[in-house]
Amino acid sequence: MRLFTNKAFTLSLVGLAATATVAMAASHSQKGLEDAVKARHAQMQMVGYHTGMLGAIAKGEAEFDAQIVSAAAANLAALATMERATLWIEGSEQGAVEGSRAKAEIWSDPDGFAAKFGDLEKAALAFEGAADAAAVGAAMGALGGSCKGCHETYRGPKN
Amino acid sequence: MRLFTNKAFTLSLVGLAATATVAMAASHSQKGLEDAVKARHAQMQMVGYHTGMLGAIAKGEAEFDAQIVSAAAANLAALATMERATLWIEGSEQGAVEGSRAKAEIWSDPDGFAAKFGDLEKAALAFEGAADAAAVGAAMGALGGSCKGCHETYRGPKN
Repeated sequence: MRLFTNKAFTLSLVGLAATATVAMAASHSQKGLEDAVKARHAQMQMVGYHTGMLGAIAKGEAEFDAQIVSAAAANLAALATMERATLWIEGSEQGAVEGSRAKAEIWSDPDGFAAKFGDLEKAALAFEGAADAAAVGAAMGALGGSCKGCHETYRGPKN
Repeated sequence: MRLFTNKAFTLSLVGLAATATVAMAASHSQKGLEDAVKARHAQMQMVGYHTGMLGAIAKGEAEFDAQIVSAAAANLAALATMERATLWIEGSEQGAVEGSRAKAEIWSDPDGFAAKFGDLEKAALAFEGAADAAAVGAAMGALGGSCKGCHETYRGPKN
């Protein structure tokens, strides 16, 4: 009987937890969650755009331009330090919202996730003051590594 | 003959200016200009997303949440202060690149254009510390006005 009681108590806790999760998700409409995913994709689009711009300079496909390098670095840092509260809304993970590739670990390990954006910011700021294409090339490794480091842990497979 | 000489000189200057413009545009490939337009649209998408989020709180469609309001304000300010050198590339105006609605005035009047982003930043920062939905509502006018003020002058008609 004691086992049964414990089991009932455990089931009751699970039920409470499930209710709490539903209530939290319900505070954002499905439309709100879809919009959050689209805004994150816009953020990532801009990260990719600026990374591509720096990569083209590193590879000699685009002319070295100190102003462009500095602007790209600043914009990447601004994108990396965007407040996550409006963008990474709980309930917008892969499976729950079409197009999302966000893994549940984003919400179960917020400090680890924040650290990845810190890596991106640090990698971006390393481009500041680059004097030539070679310096841009030298900084590309850490930038690419910061993208990869986050995607490996917090991004799910292609939809 | 003097008139003719002056006219020839003027035409020659026009020719030089045209050559310079072509050379400047040529430093960015058509693909590069198209990517810049897409990145600007991503920037505007994020501005619209955060504005909509604040608007929903102002209208009582979403619950007031001080953390969300503050995060939205900070992200709008970050978007407003993005470096324009990588995004508003000369040669990517409406007509020159598919999907672009950027007017030539963006490049002929860069100070005026910069001032509009300054208006957006100021309007965004006014949301910081809003204590309730009414305070959010009170700040919406200036935010909407900053969108409208820039679009009226620097955005062309729908494509």
